[in-house]
Amino acid sequence: MKKLMMAAAVLLFSLTACAQETIKLPVPDKSKAAMSVMDALTQRRSVRSFSDRALTDDQLSLLLWAANGINREDGRRTAPTAMNRQDIQVYVCRADGAFLYDAKEHALQRVGTEDLRPYVAGARQPFAKEAPVCLVIVSDQRQFGPQGSPDYGRIDAGYVSQNVYLAATAMGLGTVARAMMEREQLAKGLGLVPEQLLLLNHPVGYVK
Amino acid sequence: MKKLMMAAAVLLFSLTACAQETIKLPVPDKSKAAMSVMDALTQRRSVRSFSDRALTDDQLSLLLWAANGINREDGRRTAPTAMNRQDIQVYVCRADGAFLYDAKEHALQRVGTEDLRPYVAGARQPFAKEAPVCLVIVSDQRQFGPQGSPDYGRIDAGYVSQNVYLAATAMGLGTVARAMMEREQLAKGLGLVPEQLLLLNHPVGYVK
Repeated sequence: MKKLMMAAAVLLFSLTACAQETIKLPVPDKSKAAMSVMDALTQRRSVRSFSDRALTDDQLSLLLWAANGINREDGRRTAPTAMNRQDIQVYVCRADGAFLYDAKEHALQRVGTEDLRPYVAGARQPFAKEAPVCLVIVSDQRQFGPQGSPDYGRIDAGYVSQNVYLAATAMGLGTVARAMMEREQLAKGLGLVPEQLLLLNHPVGYVK
Repeated sequence: MKKLMMAAAVLLFSLTACAQETIKLPVPDKSKAAMSVMDALTQRRSVRSFSDRALTDDQLSLLLWAANGINREDGRRTAPTAMNRQDIQVYVCRADGAFLYDAKEHALQRVGTEDLRPYVAGARQPFAKEAPVCLVIVSDQRQFGPQGSPDYGRIDAGYVSQNVYLAATAMGLGTVARAMMEREQLAKGLGLVPEQLLLLNHPVGYVK
């Protein structure tokens, strides 16, 4: 009985530690993607077939910074938001769990240990779960006050989504923006509150 | 009386000709903006003070192509749209009138001769009418069928708006995305139908 309680305590401790786990990302190395804006716009397209080759930490770091990272000392971002409310959050789903991108710390904050990519993909588009990384774009409506503003949230999501497209293109990776996902299970897995709107997701990986 | 009728006929003819005027844009010269995606993301910001220095046709050509031009032989664009419905239209407002960007012809189709920039700016943010060009981003809801989809329209507008930000940055120009505008007068001046949603506008010019 004592052993069982000890095991339970260890498990509980691990889960708690896990829930608070912070993974610092390497400094984004912008020299790794020298493609011009115009060339990236020329090559931008939606990719729906991914190899399972993993992304390196350096790649994920640059991708997340480009998507919604801080580009100024006052904390402003690579993507604008309505009235600078900074409502957009980017979650990362991969085989080893799910994480919130913390732009301020340029780190991943673990929110779970489950592989949520099947919920991102949904039953009808299984290709999406083949990608090593699925980004999920959420608008936290609490940033707009008690009424929220889903209309602005959607516009704001589009900016970040185009950043993902152009950064992935510049990095030699493929992606597609999708509105389809199994929202209920995904929201549960990411630990979202109802004010956090699941708007878009982006499988990202090497093109198969 | 005959003279008056003749004058009226000439005026009518001019107005009709004017309404159908097509201004072919030069081929976009992508070599004119070599900035990398990552540098453009680093420098992206909202600019709210513009010089009245005009943009050249070459600049406008590249800006519009980047915003929502065709980048593939099948007619697909630099910006994605939900279910490839291509609902986004970009209008150009400047001192000599208003134009619809025709991506297929890479041309401006004149929709009016009035300077609509004051309606784009609105009374509270006069800085916006100082810019030589104001782009207006519209979602034509008819592309989604009889029910429309304002939610997708807003996401789609965000993509094009970020293209404008990054292209302007790469071209050494400044811009800001705004949701504020005098919608009623602007819709009238652009000749919009109610299904065409006025979502965002972008004054673009040299930073003052």
